[in-house]
Amino acid sequence: MVAKIVNGREIAQSLRQEVSAEIKKLVLKNKIQPTITTVCIGSNPASTLYLKLRDNACKEVGIVSNHLILDEKTSEKKILGAINKLNIDQIVHGIFIQYPVPSHLSQEKLMNAVTPMKDVEGFNAVNLGRTIIGDEHLVPCTPQAVLTILDYEHVPLKGKDVVIVNHSNIVGKPLAALLLNRNATVSICHVFTNDLKMYTTRAEILITAAGVPNLITKDHVNNHASIVDVAVVETKKGICGDVDFQNVKDKVALLTPVPGGVGPVTIACSLKNMVKTYKNSIESV
Amino acid sequence: MVAKIVNGREIAQSLRQEVSAEIKKLVLKNKIQPTITTVCIGSNPASTLYLKLRDNACKEVGIVSNHLILDEKTSEKKILGAINKLNIDQIVHGIFIQYPVPSHLSQEKLMNAVTPMKDVEGFNAVNLGRTIIGDEHLVPCTPQAVLTILDYEHVPLKGKDVVIVNHSNIVGKPLAALLLNRNATVSICHVFTNDLKMYTTRAEILITAAGVPNLITKDHVNNHASIVDVAVVETKKGICGDVDFQNVKDKVALLTPVPGGVGPVTIACSLKNMVKTYKNSIESV
Repeated sequence: MVAKIVNGREIAQSLRQEVSAEIKKLVLKNKIQPTITTVCIGSNPASTLYLKLRDNACKEVGIVSNHLILDEKTSEKKILGAINKLNIDQIVHGIFIQYPVPSHLSQEKLMNAVTPMKDVEGFNAVNLGRTIIGDEHLVPCTPQAVLTILDYEHVPLKGKDVVIVNHSNIVGKPLAALLLNRNATVSICHVFTNDLKMYTTRAEILITAAGVPNLITKDHVNNHASIVDVAVVETKKGICGDVDFQNVKDKVALLTPVPGGVGPVTIACSLKNMVKTYKNSIESV
Repeated sequence: MVAKIVNGREIAQSLRQEVSAEIKKLVLKNKIQPTITTVCIGSNPASTLYLKLRDNACKEVGIVSNHLILDEKTSEKKILGAINKLNIDQIVHGIFIQYPVPSHLSQEKLMNAVTPMKDVEGFNAVNLGRTIIGDEHLVPCTPQAVLTILDYEHVPLKGKDVVIVNHSNIVGKPLAALLLNRNATVSICHVFTNDLKMYTTRAEILITAAGVPNLITKDHVNNHASIVDVAVVETKKGICGDVDFQNVKDKVALLTPVPGGVGPVTIACSLKNMVKTYKNSIESV
Protein backbone atom coordinates (compact mmCIF):
# COMPACT_ATOMS: atom_id res chain seq x y z
CA MET A 1 0.00 0.00 0.00
CA VAL A 2 1.27 3.51 -0.77
CA ALA A 3 0.59 5.83 2.15
CA LYS A 4 -1.54 8.90 2.08
CA ILE A 5 0.98 11.58 3.09
CA VAL A 6 -0.64 14.03 5.48
CA ASN A 7 -0.30 17.71 4.57
CA GLY A 8 0.12 19.34 7.98
CA ARG A 9 0.56 22.80 6.49
CA GLU A 10 -2.81 22.58 4.76
CA ILE A 11 -4.55 21.43 7.96
CA ALA A 12 -2.85 24.24 9.88
CA GLN A 13 -3.95 26.76 7.27
CA SER A 14 -7.56 25.69 7.60
CA LEU A 15 -7.34 25.93 11.43
CA ARG A 16 -5.81 29.41 11.21
CA GLN A 17 -8.70 30.55 9.01
CA GLU A 18 -11.21 29.29 11.61
CA VAL A 19 -9.32 30.97 14.44
CA SER A 20 -8.93 34.21 12.48
CA ALA A 21 -12.68 34.43 11.81
CA GLU A 22 -13.48 33.75 15.46
CA ILE A 23 -11.03 36.38 16.68
CA LYS A 24 -12.52 38.99 14.34
CA LYS A 25 -15.93 38.38 15.89
CA LEU A 26 -14.59 38.41 19.47
CA VAL A 27 -12.63 41.64 18.98
CA LEU A 28 -15.64 43.33 17.38
CA LYS A 29 -17.70 42.38 20.41
CA ASN A 30 -15.17 43.01 23.20
CA LYS A 31 -13.03 45.80 21.70
CA ILE A 32 -9.95 44.13 23.17
CA GLN A 33 -7.17 42.57 21.09
CA PRO A 34 -6.06 39.10 22.30
CA THR A 35 -2.57 39.34 23.74
CA ILE A 36 -0.22 36.60 24.87
CA THR A 37 3.16 36.74 26.52
CA THR A 38 5.93 34.18 26.17
CA VAL A 39 8.43 33.94 29.00
CA CYS A 40 11.83 33.16 27.45
CA ILE A 41 14.58 32.19 29.89
CA GLY A 42 17.89 32.14 28.09
CA SER A 43 17.68 30.89 24.51
CA ASN A 44 18.26 27.87 22.35
CA PRO A 45 18.07 27.66 18.55
CA ALA A 46 15.15 25.18 18.38
CA SER A 47 13.05 27.30 20.74
CA THR A 48 13.88 30.46 18.83
CA LEU A 49 12.71 28.93 15.54
CA TYR A 50 9.50 27.67 17.13
CA LEU A 51 8.88 31.06 18.74
CA LYS A 52 9.28 32.82 15.41
CA LEU A 53 6.86 30.45 13.70
CA ARG A 54 4.32 30.99 16.47
CA ASP A 55 4.73 34.76 16.30
CA ASN A 56 4.03 34.67 12.57
CA ALA A 57 0.95 32.52 13.15
CA CYS A 58 -0.29 34.92 15.86
CA LYS A 59 0.15 37.88 13.55
CA GLU A 60 -1.80 36.17 10.78
CA VAL A 61 -4.85 35.58 13.00
CA GLY A 62 -4.79 38.87 14.93
CA ILE A 63 -3.17 37.92 18.23
CA VAL A 64 -0.54 40.22 19.78
CA SER A 65 2.46 38.14 20.85
CA ASN A 66 4.89 39.65 23.36
CA HIS A 67 8.10 38.19 24.76
CA LEU A 68 9.41 38.58 28.27
CA ILE A 69 13.11 37.88 27.88
CA LEU A 70 14.93 36.82 31.05
CA ASP A 71 18.60 36.05 31.48
CA GLU A 72 19.33 32.34 31.64
CA LYS A 73 20.73 32.73 35.15
CA THR A 74 17.59 34.36 36.56
CA SER A 75 16.60 32.76 39.88
CA GLU A 76 13.49 30.62 40.17
CA LYS A 77 12.03 33.06 42.69
CA LYS A 78 12.32 35.97 40.27
CA ILE A 79 10.80 33.95 37.44
CA LEU A 80 7.89 32.83 39.62
CA GLY A 81 7.38 36.49 40.55
CA ALA A 82 7.34 37.48 36.87
CA ILE A 83 4.81 34.74 36.06
CA ASN A 84 2.63 35.90 38.90
CA LYS A 85 2.64 39.45 37.55
CA LEU A 86 1.47 38.11 34.18
CA ASN A 87 -1.20 36.03 35.95
CA ILE A 88 -2.84 39.16 37.35
CA ASP A 89 -2.12 41.49 34.40
CA GLN A 90 -5.50 42.15 32.77
CA ILE A 91 -3.89 43.00 29.43
CA VAL A 92 -2.30 39.54 29.17
CA HIS A 93 -4.78 36.83 28.14
CA GLY A 94 -2.44 33.90 27.72
CA ILE A 95 0.98 32.84 29.03
CA PHE A 96 3.60 30.57 27.49
CA ILE A 97 6.80 29.40 29.09
CA GLN A 98 9.42 28.66 26.46
CA TYR A 99 10.70 25.11 27.13
CA PRO A 100 13.23 23.67 27.75
CA VAL A 101 14.22 25.89 30.66
CA PRO A 102 17.76 26.09 32.15
CA SER A 103 18.61 23.19 34.43
CA HIS A 104 18.54 25.14 37.72
CA LEU A 105 14.77 25.59 37.26
CA SER A 106 11.98 23.11 37.95
CA GLN A 107 9.95 22.84 34.74
CA GLU A 108 7.05 21.43 36.77
CA LYS A 109 7.05 24.35 39.21
CA LEU A 110 6.90 26.84 36.35
CA MET A 111 4.08 24.92 34.66
CA ASN A 112 2.03 25.05 37.83
CA ALA A 113 2.84 28.72 38.44
CA VAL A 114 0.82 29.78 35.37
CA THR A 115 -2.78 30.43 36.41
CA PRO A 116 -4.99 27.69 34.90
CA MET A 117 -7.19 30.14 32.99
CA LYS A 118 -4.23 31.67 31.12
CA ASP A 119 -2.37 28.39 30.67
CA VAL A 120 -2.21 28.21 26.85
CA GLU A 121 -0.19 25.01 26.89
CA GLY A 122 -2.50 23.13 29.25
CA PHE A 123 0.41 21.93 31.42
CA ASN A 124 -0.92 23.18 34.76
CA ALA A 125 -2.06 20.22 36.91
CA VAL A 126 -5.64 21.55 36.90
CA ASN A 127 -5.84 21.58 33.11
CA LEU A 128 -3.99 18.28 32.79
CA GLY A 129 -6.41 16.77 35.33
CA ARG A 130 -9.37 18.06 33.31
CA THR A 131 -7.91 16.56 30.12
CA ILE A 132 -7.43 13.22 31.86
CA ILE A 133 -11.03 12.98 33.08
CA GLY A 134 -12.41 13.92 29.66
CA ASP A 135 -13.38 17.50 30.57
CA GLU A 136 -11.13 18.72 27.75
CA HIS A 137 -10.62 22.48 27.95
CA LEU A 138 -6.99 23.59 27.52
CA VAL A 139 -5.50 20.43 26.02
CA PRO A 140 -1.70 20.34 25.49
CA CYS A 141 -1.00 21.42 21.89
CA THR A 142 0.99 18.45 20.58
CA PRO A 143 -1.50 15.75 21.67
CA GLN A 144 -4.28 18.01 20.41
CA ALA A 145 -2.51 18.25 17.04
CA VAL A 146 -2.29 14.46 16.77
CA LEU A 147 -6.03 14.12 17.39
CA THR A 148 -6.75 16.96 14.96
CA ILE A 149 -4.80 15.21 12.19
CA LEU A 150 -6.47 11.83 12.78
CA ASP A 151 -9.85 13.53 12.82
CA TYR A 152 -9.12 15.55 9.66
CA GLU A 153 -8.05 12.35 7.88
CA HIS A 154 -11.16 10.49 9.08
CA VAL A 155 -9.19 7.85 10.99
CA PRO A 156 -11.65 6.25 13.44
CA LEU A 157 -10.45 5.75 17.03
CA LYS A 158 -13.12 3.80 18.92
CA GLY A 159 -11.93 0.23 19.59
CA LYS A 160 -8.75 0.74 17.56
CA ASP A 161 -5.39 -0.62 18.72
CA VAL A 162 -3.24 2.46 19.24
CA VAL A 163 0.42 2.49 20.23
CA ILE A 164 2.17 5.59 21.56
CA VAL A 165 5.96 5.68 21.77
CA ASN A 166 6.48 8.33 24.46
CA HIS A 167 5.44 8.47 28.11
CA SER A 168 6.21 12.08 28.97
CA ASN A 169 3.89 14.35 30.92
CA ILE A 170 3.39 16.69 27.97
CA VAL A 171 2.96 14.23 25.09
CA GLY A 172 2.44 10.54 25.91
CA LYS A 173 0.31 10.73 29.03
CA PRO A 174 -2.20 13.38 27.91
CA LEU A 175 -2.34 11.81 24.43
CA ALA A 176 -3.18 8.42 25.99
CA ALA A 177 -5.98 10.08 27.95
CA LEU A 178 -7.42 11.77 24.83
CA LEU A 179 -7.45 8.42 23.02
CA LEU A 180 -9.00 6.61 26.00
CA ASN A 181 -11.64 9.34 26.21
CA ARG A 182 -12.55 8.26 22.65
CA ASN A 183 -12.53 4.56 23.58
CA ALA A 184 -9.40 3.48 21.72
CA THR A 185 -7.30 0.67 23.21
CA VAL A 186 -4.01 2.33 24.07
CA SER A 187 -0.50 0.96 24.68
CA ILE A 188 2.21 3.32 25.88
CA CYS A 189 5.81 2.33 25.06
CA HIS A 190 9.10 4.09 25.74
CA VAL A 191 12.82 3.59 26.16
CA PHE A 192 12.30 0.92 28.87
CA THR A 193 9.98 -1.19 26.68
CA ASN A 194 11.54 -4.62 26.10
CA ASP A 195 10.07 -5.52 22.73
CA LEU A 196 8.95 -2.39 20.90
CA LYS A 197 8.32 -4.27 17.64
CA MET A 198 5.82 -6.58 19.32
CA TYR A 199 3.72 -3.50 20.06
CA THR A 200 4.23 -1.45 16.91
CA THR A 201 3.58 -4.24 14.41
CA ARG A 202 0.12 -4.70 15.89
CA ALA A 203 -0.78 -1.02 15.94
CA GLU A 204 -3.63 0.19 13.77
CA ILE A 205 -2.52 3.67 14.73
CA LEU A 206 1.08 4.37 15.74
CA ILE A 207 2.08 7.69 17.25
CA THR A 208 5.79 8.07 17.82
CA ALA A 209 7.61 10.84 19.68
CA ALA A 210 10.92 9.36 20.78
CA GLY A 211 13.33 11.70 19.02
CA VAL A 212 15.32 8.78 17.57
CA PRO A 213 15.79 8.89 13.75
CA ASN A 214 14.89 5.61 12.00
CA LEU A 215 13.52 4.08 15.20
CA ILE A 216 10.45 2.99 13.21
CA THR A 217 11.41 1.00 10.12
CA LYS A 218 9.18 -0.88 7.70
CA ASP A 219 9.59 -3.98 9.87
CA HIS A 220 7.92 -2.15 12.75
CA VAL A 221 4.63 -1.44 11.00
CA ASN A 222 1.75 -3.27 9.37
CA ASN A 223 0.14 -2.59 6.01
CA HIS A 224 -2.98 -0.89 7.29
CA ALA A 225 -1.42 1.35 9.90
CA SER A 226 -1.87 5.09 10.22
CA ILE A 227 1.37 6.62 11.48
CA VAL A 228 1.82 9.98 13.13
CA ASP A 229 5.42 11.09 13.63
CA VAL A 230 5.67 13.70 16.38
CA ALA A 231 9.46 13.75 16.69
CA VAL A 232 11.59 16.60 15.39
CA VAL A 233 15.30 15.82 15.22
CA GLU A 234 18.01 17.95 13.65
CA THR A 235 20.48 15.82 11.70
CA LYS A 236 23.24 16.55 9.21
CA LYS A 237 20.80 15.71 6.44
CA GLY A 238 18.19 18.12 7.83
CA ILE A 239 15.14 17.85 10.08
CA CYS A 240 13.64 14.36 10.47
CA GLY A 241 11.33 12.37 12.75
CA ASP A 242 11.38 8.86 14.24
CA VAL A 243 10.14 7.15 11.07
CA ASP A 244 12.31 5.84 8.24
CA PHE A 245 10.09 7.82 5.89
CA GLN A 246 11.38 6.60 2.51
CA ASN A 247 10.85 2.93 3.31
CA VAL A 248 7.77 3.14 5.47
CA LYS A 249 5.76 5.32 3.09
CA ASP A 250 5.30 2.47 0.59
CA LYS A 251 3.93 0.10 3.19
CA VAL A 252 1.39 1.85 5.42
CA ALA A 253 -2.00 3.53 4.92
CA LEU A 254 -1.27 7.00 6.24
CA LEU A 255 1.89 8.82 7.29
CA THR A 256 2.78 12.29 8.51
CA PRO A 257 6.04 13.77 7.19
CA VAL A 258 8.65 15.65 9.21
CA PRO A 259 8.78 18.59 8.63
CA GLY A 260 5.32 19.61 7.42
CA GLY A 261 3.28 17.16 9.50
CA VAL A 262 2.50 17.53 13.20
CA GLY A 263 4.62 20.69 13.67
CA PRO A 264 2.45 23.25 11.86
CA VAL A 265 -0.74 21.73 13.28
CA THR A 266 0.69 22.02 16.82
CA ILE A 267 1.23 25.75 16.32
CA ALA A 268 -2.29 26.12 14.94
CA CYS A 269 -3.66 24.25 17.98
CA SER A 270 -1.81 26.68 20.25
CA LEU A 271 -3.77 29.47 18.51
CA LYS A 272 -7.00 27.64 19.32
CA ASN A 273 -5.93 27.47 22.98
CA MET A 274 -5.12 31.19 22.92
CA VAL A 275 -8.71 31.90 21.88
CA LYS A 276 -9.85 29.87 24.89
CA THR A 277 -7.61 31.68 27.37
CA TYR A 278 -8.74 35.01 25.85
CA LYS A 279 -12.37 34.02 26.42
CA ASN A 280 -11.54 32.88 29.99
CA SER A 281 -9.92 36.25 30.71
CA ILE A 282 -12.68 38.33 29.11
CA GLU A 283 -15.44 36.38 30.82
CA SER A 284 -13.79 36.62 34.24
CA VAL A 285 -13.58 40.44 34.19
CA MET B 1 2.80 -23.04 38.32
CA VAL B 2 0.68 -22.70 41.44
CA ALA B 3 0.04 -19.06 42.21
CA LYS B 4 1.11 -17.22 45.32
CA ILE B 5 -2.27 -16.05 46.67
CA VAL B 6 -1.98 -12.52 47.99
CA ASN B 7 -3.25 -11.94 51.52
CA GLY B 8 -4.81 -8.49 51.26
CA ARG B 9 -6.00 -8.51 54.86
CA GLU B 10 -2.46 -9.07 56.11
CA ILE B 11 -1.09 -6.23 53.97
CA ALA B 12 -3.90 -3.97 55.18
CA GLN B 13 -3.16 -4.88 58.79
CA SER B 14 0.48 -3.91 58.39
CA LEU B 15 -0.52 -0.57 56.78
CA ARG B 16 -2.98 0.16 59.60
CA GLN B 17 -0.22 -0.41 62.15
CA GLU B 18 2.01 2.10 60.33
CA VAL B 19 -0.80 4.65 60.12
CA SER B 20 -1.77 4.12 63.74
CA ALA B 21 1.78 4.78 64.95
CA GLU B 22 2.05 7.91 62.80
CA ILE B 23 -1.28 9.26 64.06
CA LYS B 24 -0.25 8.73 67.69
CA LYS B 25 2.83 10.88 67.09
CA LEU B 26 0.90 13.57 65.20
CA VAL B 27 -1.81 13.83 67.85
CA LEU B 28 0.77 14.04 70.60
CA LYS B 29 2.42 16.91 68.76
CA ASN B 30 -0.66 18.80 67.53
CA LYS B 31 -3.23 17.95 70.25
CA ILE B 32 -5.87 17.63 67.55
CA GLN B 33 -7.59 14.37 66.65
CA PRO B 34 -7.79 13.69 62.86
CA THR B 35 -11.40 13.95 61.74
CA ILE B 36 -12.95 13.13 58.40
CA THR B 37 -16.48 13.59 57.13
CA THR B 38 -18.20 11.42 54.56
CA VAL B 39 -21.02 13.02 52.58
CA CYS B 40 -23.67 10.32 51.99
CA ILE B 41 -26.40 11.21 49.52
CA GLY B 42 -29.15 8.62 49.69
CA SER B 43 -27.90 5.09 50.31
CA ASN B 44 -27.11 1.82 48.60
CA PRO B 45 -26.14 -1.48 50.22
CA ALA B 46 -22.64 -1.72 48.71
CA SER B 47 -21.76 1.82 49.82
CA THR B 48 -23.15 1.17 53.30
CA LEU B 49 -20.96 -1.92 53.72
CA TYR B 50 -17.87 -0.09 52.47
CA LEU B 51 -18.63 2.85 54.77
CA LYS B 52 -18.91 0.54 57.76
CA LEU B 53 -15.60 -1.14 56.96
CA ARG B 54 -13.92 2.24 56.61
CA ASP B 55 -15.42 3.48 59.88
CA ASN B 56 -14.02 0.42 61.67
CA ALA B 57 -10.61 1.01 60.12
CA CYS B 58 -10.68 4.69 61.16
CA LYS B 59 -11.57 3.74 64.74
CA GLU B 60 -8.70 1.25 64.88
CA VAL B 61 -6.09 3.87 63.91
CA GLY B 62 -7.53 6.83 65.85
CA ILE B 63 -9.37 8.81 63.18
CA VAL B 64 -12.81 10.26 63.96
CA SER B 65 -15.17 9.45 61.10
CA ASN B 66 -18.38 11.49 60.80
CA HIS B 67 -21.20 11.13 58.28
CA LEU B 68 -23.20 13.93 56.76
CA ILE B 69 -26.38 12.19 55.64
CA LEU B 70 -28.34 13.98 52.91
CA ASP B 71 -31.64 12.92 51.38
CA GLU B 72 -31.21 11.35 47.95
CA LYS B 73 -33.32 14.12 46.39
CA THR B 74 -31.12 16.95 47.73
CA SER B 75 -30.36 19.49 44.97
CA GLU B 76 -26.86 19.82 43.55
CA LYS B 77 -26.70 23.42 44.77
CA LYS B 78 -27.40 22.40 48.37
CA ILE B 79 -24.82 19.59 48.22
CA LEU B 80 -22.17 21.92 46.78
CA GLY B 81 -22.99 24.34 49.61
CA ALA B 82 -22.57 21.57 52.17
CA ILE B 83 -19.21 20.54 50.66
CA ASN B 84 -18.04 24.13 50.76
CA LYS B 85 -18.88 24.38 54.45
CA LEU B 86 -16.76 21.29 55.07
CA ASN B 87 -13.96 22.78 52.94
CA ILE B 88 -13.66 25.75 55.31
CA ASP B 89 -14.48 23.90 58.55
CA GLN B 90 -11.22 23.78 60.53
CA ILE B 91 -12.36 20.75 62.52
CA VAL B 92 -12.72 18.65 59.34
CA HIS B 93 -9.38 17.44 57.94
CA GLY B 94 -10.60 15.20 55.16
CA ILE B 95 -13.72 14.86 52.99
CA PHE B 96 -15.17 11.83 51.25
CA ILE B 97 -18.14 11.78 48.92
CA GLN B 98 -19.85 8.41 49.00
CA TYR B 99 -20.12 7.20 45.37
CA PRO B 100 -22.15 6.38 43.38
CA VAL B 101 -24.31 9.49 43.76
CA PRO B 102 -27.96 9.76 42.58
CA SER B 103 -28.31 10.33 38.84
CA HIS B 104 -29.44 13.98 39.04
CA LEU B 105 -25.97 14.89 40.32
CA SER B 106 -22.75 15.34 38.38
CA GLN B 107 -20.15 13.09 40.01
CA GLU B 108 -17.40 15.13 38.39
CA LYS B 109 -18.73 18.43 39.78
CA LEU B 110 -18.81 16.99 43.29
CA MET B 111 -15.28 15.61 42.93
CA ASN B 112 -14.00 19.03 41.96
CA ALA B 113 -15.98 20.79 44.70
CA VAL B 114 -13.85 19.16 47.41
CA THR B 115 -10.88 21.42 48.16
CA PRO B 116 -7.68 19.69 46.91
CA MET B 117 -6.03 19.70 50.32
CA LYS B 118 -8.91 17.79 51.99
CA ASP B 119 -9.56 15.52 48.99
CA VAL B 120 -8.92 12.10 50.59
CA GLU B 121 -9.85 10.25 47.41
CA GLY B 122 -7.56 12.24 45.13
CA PHE B 123 -10.31 12.74 42.53
CA ASN B 124 -10.09 16.53 42.33
CA ALA B 125 -8.53 17.57 38.97
CA VAL B 126 -5.59 19.18 40.80
CA ASN B 127 -4.70 15.96 42.63
CA LEU B 128 -5.35 13.81 39.58
CA GLY B 129 -3.12 16.14 37.53
CA ARG B 130 -0.38 15.82 40.15
CA THR B 131 -0.66 12.02 40.08
CA ILE B 132 -0.41 12.04 36.29
CA ILE B 133 2.77 14.10 36.19
CA GLY B 134 4.44 11.96 38.86
CA ASP B 135 4.06 14.47 41.70
CA GLU B 136 2.13 11.83 43.65
CA HIS B 137 0.46 13.34 46.71
CA LEU B 138 -3.19 12.29 47.18
CA VAL B 139 -3.31 9.28 44.87
CA PRO B 140 -6.75 7.62 44.33
CA CYS B 141 -7.03 4.73 46.81
CA THR B 142 -7.73 1.80 44.46
CA PRO B 143 -4.79 2.42 42.10
CA GLN B 144 -2.64 3.09 45.17
CA ALA B 145 -3.73 -0.27 46.62
CA VAL B 146 -2.72 -2.08 43.42
CA LEU B 147 0.75 -0.52 43.54
CA THR B 148 1.02 -1.27 47.26
CA ILE B 149 0.27 -4.95 46.69
CA LEU B 150 2.76 -5.28 43.80
CA ASP B 151 5.38 -3.54 45.89
CA TYR B 152 4.67 -5.68 48.98
CA GLU B 153 4.99 -8.83 46.84
CA HIS B 154 8.24 -7.57 45.27
CA VAL B 155 6.87 -7.59 41.71
CA PRO B 156 9.18 -5.34 39.65
CA LEU B 157 7.52 -2.82 37.31
CA LYS B 158 10.26 -1.15 35.25
CA GLY B 159 10.12 -2.34 31.64
CA LYS B 160 7.39 -4.90 32.42
CA ASP B 161 4.46 -5.46 30.05
CA VAL B 162 1.42 -4.44 32.07
CA VAL B 163 -2.19 -4.71 30.93
CA ILE B 164 -5.03 -2.86 32.68
CA VAL B 165 -8.63 -3.82 31.92
CA ASN B 166 -10.46 -0.59 32.87
CA HIS B 167 -10.22 2.93 31.48
CA SER B 168 -12.22 4.89 34.06
CA ASN B 169 -11.12 8.19 35.56
CA ILE B 170 -10.82 6.72 39.04
CA VAL B 171 -9.11 3.39 38.33
CA GLY B 172 -7.64 2.79 34.86
CA LYS B 173 -6.32 6.23 33.99
CA PRO B 174 -4.57 7.08 37.28
CA LEU B 175 -3.30 3.49 37.57
CA ALA B 176 -1.77 3.75 34.08
CA ALA B 177 -0.04 6.97 35.13
CA LEU B 178 1.36 5.40 38.32
CA LEU B 179 2.78 2.51 36.27
CA LEU B 180 4.22 4.83 33.61
CA ASN B 181 5.79 6.92 36.38
CA ARG B 182 7.64 3.69 37.28
CA ASN B 183 8.60 3.01 33.63
CA ALA B 184 6.36 0.02 32.98
CA THR B 185 5.01 -0.46 29.45
CA VAL B 186 1.25 -0.08 29.85
CA SER B 187 -1.70 -1.18 27.72
CA ILE B 188 -5.19 -0.06 28.68
CA CYS B 189 -8.08 -2.26 27.53
CA HIS B 190 -11.83 -1.97 28.09
CA VAL B 191 -15.23 -2.95 26.77
CA PHE B 192 -14.43 -1.54 23.30
CA THR B 193 -11.20 -3.55 22.92
CA ASN B 194 -11.50 -5.89 19.94
CA ASP B 195 -9.20 -8.71 21.01
CA LEU B 196 -8.78 -8.70 24.79
CA LYS B 197 -7.00 -12.06 24.80
CA MET B 198 -4.25 -10.76 22.50
CA TYR B 199 -3.38 -8.25 25.22
CA THR B 200 -3.91 -10.31 28.36
CA THR B 201 -1.95 -13.38 27.23
CA ARG B 202 1.13 -11.21 26.80
CA ALA B 203 0.81 -9.44 30.13
CA GLU B 204 3.53 -9.96 32.73
CA ILE B 205 1.23 -8.07 35.10
CA LEU B 206 -2.53 -8.04 34.53
CA ILE B 207 -4.78 -5.72 36.51
CA THR B 208 -8.46 -6.21 35.86
CA ALA B 209 -11.38 -4.07 37.05
CA ALA B 210 -14.21 -4.74 34.62
CA GLY B 211 -16.84 -6.06 37.01
CA VAL B 212 -17.51 -9.08 34.77
CA PRO B 213 -17.26 -12.48 36.57
CA ASN B 214 -15.09 -15.01 34.72
CA LEU B 215 -13.95 -12.44 32.16
CA ILE B 216 -10.37 -13.64 32.73
CA THR B 217 -10.06 -17.42 32.26
CA LYS B 218 -6.94 -19.56 32.20
CA ASP B 219 -6.78 -19.03 28.42
CA HIS B 220 -6.35 -15.30 28.98
CA VAL B 221 -3.16 -15.53 31.03
CA ASN B 222 0.40 -16.79 30.76
CA ASN B 223 2.34 -18.92 33.22
CA HIS B 224 4.49 -16.19 34.68
CA ALA B 225 1.83 -13.51 35.11
CA SER B 226 1.04 -11.61 38.29
CA ILE B 227 -2.70 -10.91 38.40
CA VAL B 228 -4.46 -8.28 40.46
CA ASP B 229 -8.26 -8.52 40.49
CA VAL B 230 -9.82 -5.18 41.43
CA ALA B 231 -13.43 -6.06 40.58
CA VAL B 232 -16.06 -6.69 43.24
CA VAL B 233 -19.24 -8.30 41.93
CA GLU B 234 -22.11 -9.63 44.00
CA THR B 235 -23.40 -12.92 42.58
CA LYS B 236 -25.74 -15.62 43.89
CA LYS B 237 -22.66 -17.61 44.91
CA GLY B 238 -21.22 -14.64 46.84
CA ILE B 239 -18.72 -11.86 46.12
CA CYS B 240 -16.33 -12.47 43.21
CA GLY B 241 -13.99 -10.59 40.88
CA ASP B 242 -13.24 -10.72 37.13
CA VAL B 243 -10.95 -13.74 37.37
CA ASP B 244 -12.05 -17.39 37.16
CA PHE B 245 -10.13 -17.95 40.37
CA GLN B 246 -10.33 -21.75 40.65
CA ASN B 247 -8.85 -22.36 37.21
CA VAL B 248 -6.45 -19.44 36.98
CA LYS B 249 -4.79 -20.03 40.36
CA ASP B 250 -3.02 -23.17 39.15
CA LYS B 251 -1.50 -21.45 36.15
CA VAL B 252 -0.08 -18.05 37.11
CA ALA B 253 2.65 -16.77 39.43
CA LEU B 254 0.64 -14.47 41.68
CA LEU B 255 -3.07 -13.80 42.15
CA THR B 256 -5.20 -11.63 44.42
CA PRO B 257 -8.43 -13.21 45.71
CA VAL B 258 -11.84 -11.51 45.88
CA PRO B 259 -12.76 -10.88 48.65
CA GLY B 260 -9.63 -10.45 50.76
CA GLY B 261 -7.36 -9.01 48.07
CA VAL B 262 -7.44 -5.42 46.81
CA GLY B 263 -10.49 -4.40 48.92
CA PRO B 264 -8.92 -4.27 52.41
CA VAL B 265 -5.74 -2.68 51.03
CA THR B 266 -7.84 0.05 49.37
CA ILE B 267 -9.39 0.95 52.71
CA ALA B 268 -5.96 0.99 54.34
CA CYS B 269 -4.68 3.29 51.57
CA SER B 270 -7.57 5.65 52.26
CA LEU B 271 -6.28 5.86 55.86
CA LYS B 272 -2.85 6.83 54.52
CA ASN B 273 -4.49 9.58 52.47
CA MET B 274 -6.38 10.78 55.57
CA VAL B 275 -3.05 11.27 57.32
CA LYS B 276 -1.94 13.39 54.37
CA THR B 277 -5.06 15.59 54.37
CA TYR B 278 -4.71 15.95 58.16
CA LYS B 279 -1.14 17.15 57.72
CA ASN B 280 -2.25 19.53 54.93
CA SER B 281 -4.90 21.02 57.22
CA ILE B 282 -2.67 21.30 60.27
CA GLU B 283 0.18 22.84 58.29
CA SER B 284 -2.09 25.41 56.62
CA VAL B 285 -3.44 26.77 59.92
